[in-house]
Amino acid sequence: MADYEPTKRTRVFRKPGRGSHDRELVHSILDEALICHVGFVQDGQPYVIPTIHARNGDTLYLHGANANRTFRVLADGVPCCLTATLVDELVLARAALHHSLNYRSVMVLGTAREVTDPEEKERALRMVVEHIAPGRSEEVRGANETDLRSTKVLSMEIEEASAKVRTGPPLDDDDDLDLPHWAGRLPLTLGTGDPVPAPDLTRELPVPDHVAAWSRRNGPRT
Amino acid sequence: MADYEPTKRTRVFRKPGRGSHDRELVHSILDEALICHVGFVQDGQPYVIPTIHARNGDTLYLHGANANRTFRVLADGVPCCLTATLVDELVLARAALHHSLNYRSVMVLGTAREVTDPEEKERALRMVVEHIAPGRSEEVRGANETDLRSTKVLSMEIEEASAKVRTGPPLDDDDDLDLPHWAGRLPLTLGTGDPVPAPDLTRELPVPDHVAAWSRRNGPRT
Repeated sequence: MADYEPTKRTRVFRKPGRGSHDRELVHSILDEALICHVGFVQDGQPYVIPTIHARNGDTLYLHGANANRTFRVLADGVPCCLTATLVDELVLARAALHHSLNYRSVMVLGTAREVTDPEEKERALRMVVEHIAPGRSEEVRGANETDLRSTKVLSMEIEEASAKVRTGPPLDDDDDLDLPHWAGRLPLTLGTGDPVPAPDLTRELPVPDHVAAWSRRNGPRT
Repeated sequence: MADYEPTKRTRVFRKPGRGSHDRELVHSILDEALICHVGFVQDGQPYVIPTIHARNGDTLYLHGANANRTFRVLADGVPCCLTATLVDELVLARAALHHSLNYRSVMVLGTAREVTDPEEKERALRMVVEHIAPGRSEEVRGANETDLRSTKVLSMEIEEASAKVRTGPPLDDDDDLDLPHWAGRLPLTLGTGDPVPAPDLTRELPVPDHVAAWSRRNGPRT
């Protein structure tokens, strides 16, 4: 797959070694992140809203209630920025200044459009389910006409995008290497507790595999 | 502690039961979140950037290299939005439409200012260490003059802020309750792997308690 074209707005200037326009990397980060943060401007004020996304090729889908203010603004096609971030490790240096996190993030710039085709809307909602819990989309009721009327689905093409990745150990100054402070990394992991059945289940149903065995693919650590 | 004053920009209109201006709740979410996403506007385009924050009372601190574009823009005092989000549980409904996440998020609107006082800068950098790994700030080298010259520290007052929290089971339509699909919640947990010592440690140092026993306070689940 070809890289995304770097632009003046997505080129990584600082520490360019951490920046990338690699399409597979961008996709993998978007797929692993459960949520993203979408930024848009209203009356000169930026707003940053967390939301669930799903990806189909180079198309991102978002969904929200019809009455949702954010989605009404975004549906107008205003410039927006969708950022997804995964925190992989604490980076613990000898010097306070050099503390950091190992992370992977993606920034997508563009505009959203409202999806009006009922079939694409229904597919997008299934993709959101699949994004949260892979394997589940076959075991739910798909959206019906009432659902589709009450919901806004937005799509955003991934055209102008960049990834930023930090890996590796803390980078202390040479003068500090001999200080008596432990330095290193602490990997973070996403785990699960016991599934909690809905109180209104009307019959005994086993916890499905896609829930019992749920885990999030972890990107490489180095 | 008194609530934050709701404004036209921070009032939660949709599902107001999920919205809050409770100061303790806002603080607890900001403290638990390792990172936040900061939104700002440049040439009409919103950008959303992940960064580490630290809180001291109603003051948030951010830090970045002097050459960092984002921090140069923010230091000019442009309107910005700082959002921190914690994902607590997957919410798995019978209907695709009703899938969701239980989460806690905070949105702070305002402007940043550059911290120029060396003592406040040094304190802010320690707070960032303490935010990432409580207990560690006593076991690192504080910022020296060179560090302070190379780093921009920004502060942002929490004055206009709101929290949004979703808890509880999936909310399926009455007509769907009898469908043969398991529904419920899957709690997510933040765990740790084994600490990885920096390859340039010059002596044998034990992994300190604040690393070995690191865990993130978890907000309430219901």
